[in-house]
Amino acid sequence: MDKDDRFMLEALRLARQGVEQRHGGPFGAVVVVDDEILGRGWNQVVARNDPTAHAEILAIRDACARLGQFHLERASLYSTCEPCPMCLAATHWARIGTLVFAADAEDAARLGFHDKAIMQKMHKPLPLSGIQVRRIMQDSAQELFELWQADQAKTPY
Amino acid sequence: MDKDDRFMLEALRLARQGVEQRHGGPFGAVVVVDDEILGRGWNQVVARNDPTAHAEILAIRDACARLGQFHLERASLYSTCEPCPMCLAATHWARIGTLVFAADAEDAARLGFHDKAIMQKMHKPLPLSGIQVRRIMQDSAQELFELWQADQAKTPY
Repeated sequence: MDKDDRFMLEALRLARQGVEQRHGGPFGAVVVVDDEILGRGWNQVVARNDPTAHAEILAIRDACARLGQFHLERASLYSTCEPCPMCLAATHWARIGTLVFAADAEDAARLGFHDKAIMQKMHKPLPLSGIQVRRIMQDSAQELFELWQADQAKTPY
Repeated sequence: MDKDDRFMLEALRLARQGVEQRHGGPFGAVVVVDDEILGRGWNQVVARNDPTAHAEILAIRDACARLGQFHLERASLYSTCEPCPMCLAATHWARIGTLVFAADAEDAARLGFHDKAIMQKMHKPLPLSGIQVRRIMQDSAQELFELWQADQAKTPY
């Protein structure tokens, strides 16, 4: 069997298990490094009462925990569905280089999921995103940034 | 003191504590419901080896855990910095209605953080995002979606 198919089958298996146990939506993901699965995740929004517990987020956290590092430069992410903007940004933050997916955001929208709607909101300027936005205390935040910048022993990421 | 300022001061305090303990970047956040802080977070990317451990994500997870629910319709999110796309999408998933922030993505970019770069990548179609993308096994994902759709006892979100 093709490697891609093998890893996607595992993501599909995790997703199916999550649906059967009613953990959340029908989504699974694995993180692969050097042809080995190092992170596994399936949607657990309902089970964990956590709106951020998407399959990809959990798979990335799992792989990072296993490797003890917050970047996954050589990793591939296999997801049963195109990542939502939260998970896509997490993929960028983790510096994952390759993404393989099966269903897409249109398919998820047909099931009633908001991935596509959120994507569209995020292409608008923040004040038009549907969220009420205010900006305050910019000077205090700048002081904080200077504190961080002055710390020679910090770990950048 | 103005309510907004009071909540932002707590977010700034958390961020400062995180910088002092070298947990990660200079970012803090609180989730407020009915004038009460129900969720707290500060950047812990370095401390937890978790690229998703941004202040806002942790504050949202904290508030949801406390309330035992995955939506925060009446909540406001106070963040010391404009949320990155991961955190903004999480704000949408959590159905948070109000966002108050201090520094913005430009300020964070001056510190070397990638919020703005990731935002720009996400405004492009996926194949131009800098991540290698492949799509496979769409039929298997559809079968999984049908399994979920057929389950009458599921919890939608």
